[in-house]
Parts: sequence; structure tokens; C-alpha cells
Amino acid sequence: MVQPAPLQFLPLPTSISPSFWHRLTSLKLHHLGLDDKSVPIKGCYSLGRTVHDKLTGDSVGISGSLELDEGSFDLDVGDGTSAPSPHRDHFVLRGVLRNYNTIEEFKRADKAKLLSDLGDQIWSAIRHPSPETTLADLNPFLMITFADLKKYRYCYWCAIPALVQKPGWEIVEGWRKCDEPALEQIDASVALLSADGVTAPLHAFATFWARTPPEERTLVFNDPSSHPTALGWSVRNALTFLAHSPSPLDPPVHRLHIISRREGKTLSCVVRLPESVEEALTVRPAVVGWEKNDAGKLGPRMADLAPLMDPTRLADQAVDLNLQLMRWRILPSLDLDKIKKTRCLLLGAGTLGCYVARTLMAWGVRKMTLVDSSTVSFSNPVRQPLFEFEDSLEGGKPKAAAAAAALKRIYPGVDATGVSLSVPMPGHPIPPSSLESVRADVIKLDQLFEEHDVVYLLMDSRESRWLPTVMGAAKEKLVINVALGFDTFLAMRHGLPPSSDAPILAPSPGSPFRGKLGCYYCNDVVAPQDSLTDRTLDQMCTVTRPGIAAIASATAVELMVS
Amino acid sequence: MVQPAPLQFLPLPTSISPSFWHRLTSLKLHHLGLDDKSVPIKGCYSLGRTVHDKLTGDSVGISGSLELDEGSFDLDVGDGTSAPSPHRDHFVLRGVLRNYNTIEEFKRADKAKLLSDLGDQIWSAIRHPSPETTLADLNPFLMITFADLKKYRYCYWCAIPALVQKPGWEIVEGWRKCDEPALEQIDASVALLSADGVTAPLHAFATFWARTPPEERTLVFNDPSSHPTALGWSVRNALTFLAHSPSPLDPPVHRLHIISRREGKTLSCVVRLPESVEEALTVRPAVVGWEKNDAGKLGPRMADLAPLMDPTRLADQAVDLNLQLMRWRILPSLDLDKIKKTRCLLLGAGTLGCYVARTLMAWGVRKMTLVDSSTVSFSNPVRQPLFEFEDSLEGGKPKAAAAAAALKRIYPGVDATGVSLSVPMPGHPIPPSSLESVRADVIKLDQLFEEHDVVYLLMDSRESRWLPTVMGAAKEKLVINVALGFDTFLAMRHGLPPSSDAPILAPSPGSPFRGKLGCYYCNDVVAPQDSLTDRTLDQMCTVTRPGIAAIASATAVELMVS
Repeated sequence: MVQPAPLQFLPLPTSISPSFWHRLTSLKLHHLGLDDKSVPIKGCYSLGRTVHDKLTGDSVGISGSLELDEGSFDLDVGDGTSAPSPHRDHFVLRGVLRNYNTIEEFKRADKAKLLSDLGDQIWSAIRHPSPETTLADLNPFLMITFADLKKYRYCYWCAIPALVQKPGWEIVEGWRKCDEPALEQIDASVALLSADGVTAPLHAFATFWARTPPEERTLVFNDPSSHPTALGWSVRNALTFLAHSPSPLDPPVHRLHIISRREGKTLSCVVRLPESVEEALTVRPAVVGWEKNDAGKLGPRMADLAPLMDPTRLADQAVDLNLQLMRWRILPSLDLDKIKKTRCLLLGAGTLGCYVARTLMAWGVRKMTLVDSSTVSFSNPVRQPLFEFEDSLEGGKPKAAAAAAALKRIYPGVDATGVSLSVPMPGHPIPPSSLESVRADVIKLDQLFEEHDVVYLLMDSRESRWLPTVMGAAKEKLVINVALGFDTFLAMRHGLPPSSDAPILAPSPGSPFRGKLGCYYCNDVVAPQDSLTDRTLDQMCTVTRPGIAAIASATAVELMVS
Repeated sequence: MVQPAPLQFLPLPTSISPSFWHRLTSLKLHHLGLDDKSVPIKGCYSLGRTVHDKLTGDSVGISGSLELDEGSFDLDVGDGTSAPSPHRDHFVLRGVLRNYNTIEEFKRADKAKLLSDLGDQIWSAIRHPSPETTLADLNPFLMITFADLKKYRYCYWCAIPALVQKPGWEIVEGWRKCDEPALEQIDASVALLSADGVTAPLHAFATFWARTPPEERTLVFNDPSSHPTALGWSVRNALTFLAHSPSPLDPPVHRLHIISRREGKTLSCVVRLPESVEEALTVRPAVVGWEKNDAGKLGPRMADLAPLMDPTRLADQAVDLNLQLMRWRILPSLDLDKIKKTRCLLLGAGTLGCYVARTLMAWGVRKMTLVDSSTVSFSNPVRQPLFEFEDSLEGGKPKAAAAAAALKRIYPGVDATGVSLSVPMPGHPIPPSSLESVRADVIKLDQLFEEHDVVYLLMDSRESRWLPTVMGAAKEKLVINVALGFDTFLAMRHGLPPSSDAPILAPSPGSPFRGKLGCYYCNDVVAPQDSLTDRTLDQMCTVTRPGIAAIASATAVELMVS
């Protein structure tokens, strides 16, 4: 007599869509933070298929895989049985995801224990079945990950654990092509079938088969395998369940007719357990199931999404990421969205203007308008970090427009505009011939104030700050004022009354001054006047220690952000 | 009888070469500073010429002008008479320059008084002649200027004062073309001539003409005028001198034969003073002489050199200017040349590296080498002020090279190099396969230390600072160490023993530690180890408040400069 062939099972490979990683990124960034607890997920597989290769005339089998995508985090399917799968012939498994915070933690994770724990869970479901035990309960999967959000690289490893019955099932008869039984009305991925076409769910096997002759006990299952002589992985624990779950059946389920439902070509076979099998194991069998990687070895895989992504979008996300990361541990209360939406008006696009714009951009501010009336001079680029030598040629480009263009070159996602405009100053009489253009400038300035939330005063004289200070107070805008000395600087925040429009600062409503802070001119007894005309070269704004502007600008932006 | 025609004088125009302004710029920047005292200068003129226009067949007169150039500040000609002029037929006048510190001071200067003071000086030379009084003594000129060194624009106004004799000289005979007398042997621009061809200098007129008949008194002068009926301006005060300088001559010099020596066409005429003239004036006559500008009005002129200059050189000077200006008033002791020549090695071209490089460039440092092993990522440009979005595409450019290229785009005069290199770190074992490349990196690093004066540690981990700290101590380099926390930073200067090589810091020789300061590891009990591998995303170097790097970098550069 020929030795019966052992029944074999085809592992269920996983197939992870990029959208799964995008959802994980978002979850990690905005919700999980440093939390590495298990997150419930789900995956689904479809039937194995056999397709006809038109070229060779051969039949080619295509096995199903466990697919994870953006929907894998949406567990609205509840316990996985009551609600129908989203698609017919798509069968859901439930799992957990553990995302480690560092690649070292990922590497150090005790994979044997992780698998063993799941084995215990499956064994428990077998030995202490609930009245609703399903195939999904017997096939919980596991995914461990390390997500390098900076590089869009995801290290991961999946396991679909299976208990190893020893001795295992043997094929008694098979394989035969058979007609598909009429199972359209049930969605469960495994069902019991009686000779007269009646079906029952897996967990009801003891009562359902109580009066069925042992040779007519039939299991139908939706098989992801397309292999001609192997069953899909997901039925393996179901067979162990039938053999070892406590039941009054006599004889126990040691022989079974299996119908492997596949797309286009359903197979059947008869399997049995050898006589020697113990009826009730007291020790959990060994468990296997870690997936092999592309090299055919037991080990993690890497998903690299960066090459798939649009560079502008990548930059957008990368910029946000550095800011969002602050919220994980150090500054959970940081309202980055508020900062991002703050519209900033920068009066002056010189050393201060350039540094403030850079710092605002690094903080995530997207809307900036720079105002300046002068052009880039030869000495500017080495000190004003938005200009290059090229900008100073042929008389120099207008500073405001050149600065806005540079901001866009640095980060295409910024909405930066440059406006060439002179702010009228006390002590500087307006010649009658310029009256019209000054009037137009004031109207434009007024409009710019209306269109922005925060106004930065980054000019090079005291008197030029006067009109914007008054306008800021009148229009109740947050005004940040920065001025440089030679090795000193001032960075101050002007007052803003409590208002729902206040983008950042909301002073205490109980303040007797309605939350108003002072302004640059509050403590001054000297009216602003012309300080520009009659000064020596070394009294000009450019004569400062080169590092002061960077320090003052960063400090000023802190006044807005914090 | 026809009314005799009054003798007319052609004003001597000034002609200022760009080289004059360059010398003035240098003088102001490096020597004068805010000093606005009078500076002695000189100018020279040549003979008026008559040239033949080949096209029209006409003769065209070309009058000389008072030319000022880079040599105008070199007063090696002493008193202007003893030493010969640099060129034959070039005649020197001496003057003073007053450079005002602001355009307002220039405008406010009392021009009438300035001219009047010079008039007094001339009158004094006439009434109280020294035994050596020359034509130059009678024709001191004045130049007032405001030099806008930032824009290479020079506002200026010259005066060559002349006393107005009333009534003035009249032409009795003239004009006649005459042969040039044999004066080759004398260089003075004016000379007395006797009938037998003997000459004498101007100041000797009383004795020379003591026995000469009044109608034979002849004055020969090198005339810048080419006008057919007007003498050059410089002879005007000489005639006043002859008429009004105290002398025993009888009759006094009220009639004179003048030979106007011109190139190619020497003229002569006879002039006299009306009978009515008083022999010895007691009151100084009025004075005229401010030059008319191009619009034909009495007013200043503007020289704009910027369009003439090479942009790279302009940028070079403009950058230096802002630094030099510090020395006028606030920091006279600042040794900019030392800073400029300091060769800086920047280990790390990230946020810190970019900001430090920018600040160094603004301080005038010209030689920088940036070292980094990584490439520009999408999140870098908004925080690292030497990169643009473009640099992060296609995997990202190498940071060191990209940063060096940006520095050159900003300021072509910088000598910036990028080196891609990894600094070996304790706690990070070297796989045998990398041994050769690590060895090459260390050799290169060693060489870089040798080639630079100051080393900046601008990396993102503690352990990467270890080897450069040790190398810096061994090679006695000034080491500046900068490290960021989330909202904190460290900027420290490592020790350097007193040595003549010390580019900036020279600690007191009396120090028991030979001037050595501590280093980053001095107070540490924990050996550097791998802090990079096992860390979460929000523990990475990029999670800092965006403004801190700018503040830390500027502070670090101060540690070197101050």
C-alpha cells in the first residue's frame, strides 16, 4: 500500500498597498506619536484563480494574498463575521499592528514570543471555543513595523500563525475537480455542508454533524490557494479546530471531505488524521507563520515609498513632519495648524526681513507678503539670506519681489508675494509731485493690513515704524517689532485686544486694558522725526555685528509662535 | 577813441579721474573714518592746445583743465616749486579737500565763507609775500565732497578762487601770434622775461624789473586757455599780485606785456590798469571761483562710479565696507584682516553649518571648507539656509558641495569647498568592508585640520564630536562647538594654547594651563557612544524650535570673532 501523502498548505502572502503606509504615517504622526501599543487592523484575501495563458495555452494559477490598504485601519466590520465583507469573494482576516519607535526596537523585538503569544490565542480559541468562533478568530495575523517617516521607508514583517499538528492530515482521496456547491447565500469563508446541501457555520460542527455519518462530513471553504495539490493557509487552523476542539462527536473529526472553492476551478479531496493521533492534546502544538521576504528568507521587508511620490508633496510632508514631531513629546499643545494659517506681512525685506521670513517658513507659515521699496545692493547677499550676487547686478532687483521668489525656490509650497512700496514717515515731507503715489502706497498698505493677521516691522529707521504701529493698533493686528543696534536688538510684541480674530495671542479677558500691550512709542517722549538724512555712513542700519539680525529675527518669531 | 576791451579770463575746469575717487574711498575707509579735517591734495593742468580738424579744416581750441587722479593725494612734490612736475608742461596747483560725513553737512557747509577764507589767504600772500611766493601759492584750490561709499557716488564741488580787481585790466594791444620765447630751462608756470631773454621767477619782480623800462616788463606764462581772446584763470591772481604786492617799483606794474604760452600757438598782448586804480588796496577785493556744474549753474556735481566698476569687485568692496565701518567709531580695534584670513573648517553642513557659514561670510571670512556625508532631503531647505527645493530632488545633492556652491552664488569672492566625508564615531563599529574608506576619510580629515585655523563642530550627535575634539586639541586648533537641544543650545570654544599660529585667540601666557580652555568632554563622565541608532523620530536632531539654530550659529561665530 502506498504511503498516503501529507496534506500541504500554501502560505498566504501579504500584499501591502502604498495607501496603507500613508495611513500609517498619518496615524503615527497625528495620533500614535510615541505610543507603540498594538493597533487593530484587518486584511482581506480573494479566491485563488486559474487563468488561461493565451500565448502558451497553459493554465496559470494565481493565488490570493492578504491585502492591506488604507481601509485596513477602518474596523467598521466589527467582529469580522456579522458585517459582510466590502466585496463579495473578499474574505477578511483581523490582525494587530505593532509599530516600533526605532529600528533597533524593531530588530530587538522577540519574534518567537510574538508568534507564540498568537499561537496561545489560537489554541485558546480551539480549546475554549465561543459559540461564535469563526475562521478569522482562528487566523489572527500580526504585523510589526518601523516607519521612517522622514524617508518614507517602512520596515515590516508579517506573520499569519498556524499550529503545526503532529502527525498531520493525510490525503486519502484527491484531487478532483468538482462543481461548486450552492453557497452563494453565505459569506463566511468556511462552512460545513451536509449531503443534502444544508450549510452551517464552523463553530456549530458538533451539533451539525451529530447525526451525519463520518464519511459525509464536508467542509467547504473559500480557498486563496490556486495550487493544484495544496490548500490555502487559512484552513489549516480550522482543521486543527475541528480535530481538537472539545466536542461530544463520536467518532471525532478525524476524516473529512474538503471542498476547496476557487475561482473557475473548485477542487475536492478527502483527508484524515492517522490513527495514532491523540484525541485531545493538552499541550499547544508548535506554531509557524512568519513570512519569508523576497530573498526567500525569514526576515523583514522594506517598503520605500519616496520614489513613488511627487517631490513637491514630499517636501510639503517633510516640512510638516519636523514640526509635528515636536508635538509627540515636548510640546503636545502646539497648534501647528494655527501657525500654518497665520498670514504674515513683513514690512522690510532686508537683513531682518530675510531672516524673519526664513524662520517663519521653518515654523510652517505658508502665506507671507514682503514689502520693501529698495533694490538689492552688492553688500546685501552676504547678510540678507534670501539674495544672491546675481540679484545685485544691473542696479539690483527689487528686494520684495526677489525675496518672495527666493522663498518659492526654497519651498514651492509657500504663498509669498513681494510688494514694492514706501511707507510714509514722519519728518520726511512729501513733495507735491509725489502726493499721488504716496496716497496710492497708503491705500495699498491699508489693504495689506486687512489681508494679514500679523505684521512684522523690520525697517531700518525709527520713524518708518510709526505709521504701521498706528495702523496695527487701529486694525487690531498683532504687530511684532524688531530693531537692531550695533550689538543690541529689540524684539517686541505690540498689543492686541482679545478678539476671536486674534490668530495667536489671546490675552486674558480680565485685563483692565482689554489685553492691550504697549507699543514701540508708548514710553517715548520724542516724536519720530527724520533720522535718516543727516547721518554718517557708519550710522546706517547696516553697521551691526553680522550675527545680531539672525538672533533678533528668530527671537521675534518666537514672540508670535509662543 | 575805442573803449579798451576788458581782459578776460577763462575759468579752469576741473577733471576728476575715477582713480581719484578710489583713493578717496580708501583714505576715508581706512584712515579718515569720521574725521572731516582738510586734506591737502594737488592737481595739475597742461597747456591749452589748438588742433586742426581734418574734416572741416578749422582750428579747434582745447583748453587745459585741472586734473585730479590717484596721484593727487601724493604730496611728494613738496611746496610745489622745488621739485619738478611729474611731466613737462604739466603744472601743479595745490589745494585742500574737505570730505563731509553726511550729505546734509555737505549741503550746510558755508560756501561763501570757505571761498572767502581762501581769498584771505591769497590776499595775504599778495600783501605779505614770502621770498618764494609762486603761482601755486596764489592759486590754492578747494574741493568739498560727500562720498557715499556704499553706492560709489561722490558729490563734490571745486573752487579755484580769484580776486576780482576793480577796475580790472584792459587790453591795449593784442592779440598777436608770437614765437615762443626760449623758456625750456624753467619749469615754473609763470616767469618774468627781460628784453634780452633773461628770466626770473614771479616773486622777484621788484628787483628784476627795477631797471627795466615799464613798457618792456614782460610776463610769460604757461596758459591752460586755448581761447583766442582770454587768458587762463591761473594768471589772474598773478596779475593782482604784480599790481598790489608792496614793491618799491616806480611806476608800479600797471602795464604789462603778456606772453600766453600755448601748445602750437603762443599769443601775446599788452594790458594795463586804468589810471584810476589805487596803488595799494587796503581792503581785500571780492573773490569768485566756485565751479559751475554741467547745468551751467553754481552747484555741486555728482560722480557715479558704480556703472564703471566690475560687479564682482563692487560686491567685494561693498561687503568689506560694512565691516570696515564698524571700526570708525564702535570697534576701532577690530582686526578685520585677521578675520578675513582665518581659514574655517565646518564639520557638518546642516542647519548649523549653513547658518555658521552665512555668518562667517558676513563677517568677511573668505576661506571655508564644509564637510558632510549626507544629501539634501526634502525637509532641509526650509531650515538650512543654503539649500533650495531643487537641491533635494532626485535623491538630493551632496550637502557639502551644494552648500559650497550656494556660498559662491551668494558671494563670488568666497573660497568655499565641499567635502563629502564621514567622521568616524565611538560606539559605531566599522565593518571590515569599510575599513579602507574610513581610513581614507581619517587621512583626509587630518589634512583638512592642517589646512585650516578654526574648526567648527556642527554635527548632530555627541559621539561625532569626539574625534574632531581630540584632533583639534592635538593640532592646537581653535575649535568652536555648537549643539542644539529642542529649545536650548550650547556654543563653546575649546582651548587653544598660546601660540603665534593662534589666529584669533591668544590666551594670557601666565595661565597655569598654558591658556588651554576645557572641551566638550572635560566635565563628562559618560564615554561617547552610539546615540543615533536607537532613537525615535522625534529624538532626531531636526526636532528643535526652528529659530534656535540661527541664534546658536551667530553666537558661535561671535566666540571666534570677539
